[in-house]
Amino acid sequence: MNKIYNPTPDTWSTLLERPTKTVDDIEFTVKEIFKEVQKKGDLAVAKYTSLFDGVSLDNYEVSQEEINEAIGLIANELKEAIQLAKSNIEKFHAAQKTDRVIIETTEGVNCWQEKRPIQKIGLYIPGGTAPLFSTVLMLAVPANIAGCNEIVLCSPPDKNGNINPAILYAANLCGVTKILKVGGIQAIAGMTFGTESIPKVYKIFGPGNQFVTVAKQLATQFGVAIDMPAGPSELLVVADDTAVPAFVASDLLSQAEHGTDSQVLLVSTSKNLIDAVEKEIQIQLDLLPRKAIAEKAIANSKLIYVENDSIALELINEYGPEHFIICTAADDFYIDGIENAGSVFIGNYTPESAGDYASGTNHTLPTNGFAKNYSGVNLDSFTKSMTFQKISKKGIQNIGKAIEIMAEAEGLQAHKNAVTLRLKTIEDEK
Amino acid sequence: MNKIYNPTPDTWSTLLERPTKTVDDIEFTVKEIFKEVQKKGDLAVAKYTSLFDGVSLDNYEVSQEEINEAIGLIANELKEAIQLAKSNIEKFHAAQKTDRVIIETTEGVNCWQEKRPIQKIGLYIPGGTAPLFSTVLMLAVPANIAGCNEIVLCSPPDKNGNINPAILYAANLCGVTKILKVGGIQAIAGMTFGTESIPKVYKIFGPGNQFVTVAKQLATQFGVAIDMPAGPSELLVVADDTAVPAFVASDLLSQAEHGTDSQVLLVSTSKNLIDAVEKEIQIQLDLLPRKAIAEKAIANSKLIYVENDSIALELINEYGPEHFIICTAADDFYIDGIENAGSVFIGNYTPESAGDYASGTNHTLPTNGFAKNYSGVNLDSFTKSMTFQKISKKGIQNIGKAIEIMAEAEGLQAHKNAVTLRLKTIEDEK
Repeated sequence: MNKIYNPTPDTWSTLLERPTKTVDDIEFTVKEIFKEVQKKGDLAVAKYTSLFDGVSLDNYEVSQEEINEAIGLIANELKEAIQLAKSNIEKFHAAQKTDRVIIETTEGVNCWQEKRPIQKIGLYIPGGTAPLFSTVLMLAVPANIAGCNEIVLCSPPDKNGNINPAILYAANLCGVTKILKVGGIQAIAGMTFGTESIPKVYKIFGPGNQFVTVAKQLATQFGVAIDMPAGPSELLVVADDTAVPAFVASDLLSQAEHGTDSQVLLVSTSKNLIDAVEKEIQIQLDLLPRKAIAEKAIANSKLIYVENDSIALELINEYGPEHFIICTAADDFYIDGIENAGSVFIGNYTPESAGDYASGTNHTLPTNGFAKNYSGVNLDSFTKSMTFQKISKKGIQNIGKAIEIMAEAEGLQAHKNAVTLRLKTIEDEK
Repeated sequence: MNKIYNPTPDTWSTLLERPTKTVDDIEFTVKEIFKEVQKKGDLAVAKYTSLFDGVSLDNYEVSQEEINEAIGLIANELKEAIQLAKSNIEKFHAAQKTDRVIIETTEGVNCWQEKRPIQKIGLYIPGGTAPLFSTVLMLAVPANIAGCNEIVLCSPPDKNGNINPAILYAANLCGVTKILKVGGIQAIAGMTFGTESIPKVYKIFGPGNQFVTVAKQLATQFGVAIDMPAGPSELLVVADDTAVPAFVASDLLSQAEHGTDSQVLLVSTSKNLIDAVEKEIQIQLDLLPRKAIAEKAIANSKLIYVENDSIALELINEYGPEHFIICTAADDFYIDGIENAGSVFIGNYTPESAGDYASGTNHTLPTNGFAKNYSGVNLDSFTKSMTFQKISKKGIQNIGKAIEIMAEAEGLQAHKNAVTLRLKTIEDEK
């Protein structure tokens, strides 16, 4: 593991560099499939489902029968776990509802702001060996609270033409309105253009491999919004001698098992803690089934010693971690001072995996430094803010002159006229 | 003008089509300039400032002296108008502040959501004959309320190396921290990468020509966020016999004078109203200094008659107008039912120009159908939402088992371990 002591600020940007990937090759493939799905609809979807998923389907939509069957397949203890998680996610996201903001800015000038649901939402859930049903919860629950009308979920079928039952169970539980057995680029293209089977949506959410990531980027060029730009998952822990080294090691490893490109950083004002965590990692690593993956990510991880909390905070804000665990004697200093982070986990008993599954916070978070300028998924991600205004005669008399002067100064005479005409009518009525 | 009576729903998408532009040619130029600015910094900025703006500058930053001079040049009545507008914009956007959302989702599991400012903001304000100082207000005022640390403004210099005094006055009044005489692609590239003179920012706001629009899109590929995708400005008015035809005409014309590609639509359940508005447009058009522009936009405009308010609302939601004026006997029906619109103006005395300048609502709004999935600029545009969680021993005992079960079902053993270790430690302490 890489230990770095007291790095000088001029080395931070290199030290904190994330692995970058080139997507040029992928882009061509993605564009071709988009063109084909736009032109041929389900025919193209069928072609690529056969090519990439190795299966031919007569019907892409999951039937109520299939859902019922899936429900029967899920162990009760998993059902209960999912229900507990759902309940917490619901509570936290429902609390994010905001009232209409109403204000009379000048007498007779009433303005208000309101959030209304994005009507058509698409969720992408990857397939494969690890069925990400937790992501179904994280996306469908707030979409439902927001009042989105259509919530479409696409996930690739396996060789037998099925979607993992845990995904179906969660989707059904959380109010997804249509579940489709379509994966990869063809799913994103389908939700972008609409096909005979796949509804066109206004915003696409969810994780995916590089192909899905590039496809989501491309979708934005066709007027579809996406949750946020993607990148490899990452965790930064700041810890001192008040932290339990075994806990810190377990958190770093839980991040590391996501993929070989996962980013794992420990920042500490204690060299002892760094050494202790390093030892614990070796012990715990050997016991992991995904050891091969975690080992590679850990090899690229960095354990950074700095002199004091102020320097640590500055460095952390420069990085802007997706997940940020604070376990120090100065927790409040970090809580108050953190400017850029996706989700923050505080204290010895708050592992990142709590937020990944069941505490109630969302696990779809900005990575790759995007915590500097993007929010994690939250209730507002499923709404858009609209403004309204209603001005009385008195109101336009109060602000009309200012509008006329400003419009004239900007050279927009017709803007001025729209006010002048109204003011004149009010004068004439007198 | 194009009058359409009772269009059938299957013709709506063609009827409501917006003009599309190809940006392929521009893209190449923009990419080249980005590369050069990234590599050569101020040298490249100087080259393109000389090429596009026809001026060589020793110093891009506007000095306090220049600002003071500009303040002296602005007429008092314009200053007062700007101050009134600023005050209303401030009131409306300050009211949008939200409290920390705190919730104990399960006993011992405390989660909260907080909005923190995006630290570095870039504003782009176009130059030319019409100085858009109103846009300075619309962007700098909420940035300031949000608490953004750096607010950089770029605007192209004129041939004498100056920025319009009204822009400088507004920028200074609204707390812009640095004003730079840099325009076009080189300004957006400069704020994306940072140069010796131009600070790198995290999010870029503001309007611009096609070059600026494409440059902002490209900036997102380098990790910079932007306010929203751009398109030609548009207005849809729904009006019936309760509307004053002259007022409706003046609003349609104020939209039409923006540019020949402006979108202007009138939807009505009254053929009389449509005819009366058409006549009024001809009368008012002749008096406009920007007649040539407005005339072309009006020629492409559409006056659409529909049988009843329900059909009108459905058609309007399909379009998703940037600006939406409601002037009917059924105002509440439209207010409640509108799903997709940027900003809504209600009643005979609420011209769109009120919202453009001084009512307090923001005039940076989603156009081109983006009202379906994007918010207009508001206070939240300058913040990002972060989540926090602190779990007690009791808390992890309450949700730990659910996390273990879910992590295991997703095949993520290290995620499970992070919880198991903690639960075991609590058990051992007993």
